[in-house]
Amino acid sequence: MEATLSFFFATILVLSTSHASPSFPFQNHRILLHSDGAATSAANHHRHKMSCPSWRLAVETNNIIKWTLVPEACEDYVAKYMLGSRYQEDCFAVTSIALEYAKNHTLGADGKDIWVFDIDETALSEIDYYSQPDVSFGAKKFNETKKNEYLKEAKSPPLAAVLELYNNLLPLGYKIVFISGTSESYREYRESNMKRAGYHTWEKLMLKQTSEHGTTSFIYKSNKRTELVKAGYRIIGNMGDQWSDILGSDVGNRTFKLPNPMYYIS
Amino acid sequence: MEATLSFFFATILVLSTSHASPSFPFQNHRILLHSDGAATSAANHHRHKMSCPSWRLAVETNNIIKWTLVPEACEDYVAKYMLGSRYQEDCFAVTSIALEYAKNHTLGADGKDIWVFDIDETALSEIDYYSQPDVSFGAKKFNETKKNEYLKEAKSPPLAAVLELYNNLLPLGYKIVFISGTSESYREYRESNMKRAGYHTWEKLMLKQTSEHGTTSFIYKSNKRTELVKAGYRIIGNMGDQWSDILGSDVGNRTFKLPNPMYYIS
Repeated sequence: MEATLSFFFATILVLSTSHASPSFPFQNHRILLHSDGAATSAANHHRHKMSCPSWRLAVETNNIIKWTLVPEACEDYVAKYMLGSRYQEDCFAVTSIALEYAKNHTLGADGKDIWVFDIDETALSEIDYYSQPDVSFGAKKFNETKKNEYLKEAKSPPLAAVLELYNNLLPLGYKIVFISGTSESYREYRESNMKRAGYHTWEKLMLKQTSEHGTTSFIYKSNKRTELVKAGYRIIGNMGDQWSDILGSDVGNRTFKLPNPMYYIS
Repeated sequence: MEATLSFFFATILVLSTSHASPSFPFQNHRILLHSDGAATSAANHHRHKMSCPSWRLAVETNNIIKWTLVPEACEDYVAKYMLGSRYQEDCFAVTSIALEYAKNHTLGADGKDIWVFDIDETALSEIDYYSQPDVSFGAKKFNETKKNEYLKEAKSPPLAAVLELYNNLLPLGYKIVFISGTSESYREYRESNMKRAGYHTWEKLMLKQTSEHGTTSFIYKSNKRTELVKAGYRIIGNMGDQWSDILGSDVGNRTFKLPNPMYYIS
C-alpha cells in the first residue's frame, strides 16, 4: 500500500482542463514539476499523467483501493466537489435510480423486505467535519479522537438524497436497517443524531460490538447481512458510500454506491 | 428495464455547468422543457435532475444496470468524452494503477500467473465504429449485422493504455489471456485484429463457443475463468470495461474497470 500511495503521488498531475482546478502544490519529493505544469516521477519511470478527475473516477470504480489519504494535489479538487452541486447531484442520481427500482419491486406480505443503509456519508453527511482545515476533506491524517468527539456531538445533517429515499421507501412497505461500523458504545449518540436528522424509525440500527472490533468493515458488514438473511429478512436494496458496504456475502438484490472521494474503508 | 430507461429519459436534465454541453434536445414526450433549460417529467413526479456527468458516474459505478441506449440527451456529452482527452486519461489512470500492482506482485516460478483482459473497449478500441452517425456512441439502436461487418474488417486500433500495460506485463512474466464474448466463428478476424493492433502473443484467446451462445457475458466469463483456475492458472489481474467482465466467480486477485459509457453488457 505504501508503494501504491507513493506511486499515486508520483503520478498525480493536474491537467489544465475545465474539470480540474488550475494549479496545485506538489510537495512530494518524488515529484518533478515541468515547465508545462506537468509532473512525472523523479525516476521518470511513470510518465503517465493522472488528473484529479481520473483519480476520483478510479476511486469510485474501486480501481484504487486501500488508500489512506486524498492526494495532496487533489485536496482543492475534492473540496470543490464535495461543497459544489455535483456531489449532491451525483447522490440524487443514485437515489433516483434506487427509488425507481424499489417502486418496481413487489414486496412480500410478511414485512420481511428490507433496505440496508450505511450511516456515515450515506444516511448522514459529515461534511461539516471533513471541511475543517485540519481534516481537509480527507487530505490530512485521520484523527480518531477528534472524529469521536464529533460523533458525540450527534449533529450531522442527513444526506439529503438519502433522507428523501428513506421517506419514500417507508410508505412502500420497506423496513429499514442501518448498519454502521461505529462502536456499540456510541449507540446513544448515533440514535440521537439519526432522529435529529429525520430518520424517525427503523427495524434495526446495527453497530459494531466489542467482539467485532478486530474485523474489517467488509467482513463485519457481510456478517451482519448474513445474520439478517438467516433471520428471514430479504435484502432488496443495499446502499453505501464504500465498496465494503456492498461487496461480500448477502449483498442484496441490488446494490447502490454513493460517491465518497474523502476516505476509504476496507 | 423499460420502466427504468423511460425514467432516465424523464429525469435526465443537462445542467448548465462546465461539465455538460450547453443544450440538448429532449424528444421524449414525457419531458417538459422549462424556461431555465431544466426538464422534469410531465407528471412532475420525478423532480430531481440527473445531469449527464451524474449519469456517467452512475453507469461506471454499476448503479445503472441493464441499460440499452445512451440517453439521447447525453449523446453529445458521451461523444465529447470518448473523443476528448479525458477518456484516454481515465484509461491510463486505471492501467497505471494496475501496472504498479502487477510490479509489486511476486510471481510463481511455474508460469501460471495470468492477467485476463477483455477485448472490445479493453484491448481494442472500437471508437471508429461507435463514432459513426448511425451508431452515435451508443445512442442509436444496436445493429448486429453492421457490428459484425465491422468486426470482420479487423481494423480496430488498440486501446493505447491497455497495449502499454500488456507490453509491460509480458517482461514481468505474466501470461496473457484474452476472453471475449465474440463468437468462435470470428476467430480468424479477431486474432488478425489483435496482432495488427500490437498484441503479438498470448497464452489463450477465448471466444464464445456455439454451446455458450445462450449464456450471458457474466456467466460465460465466470465459466471461462473457472476453467482457467481449474487448469492451474492463478488470475492475478483481470481488466475489462464491463462489470460483467470483473464480477462473478474466480474474478482474480484484483479487478480493474475501464470506463465505457457507450454500452452495457449483462
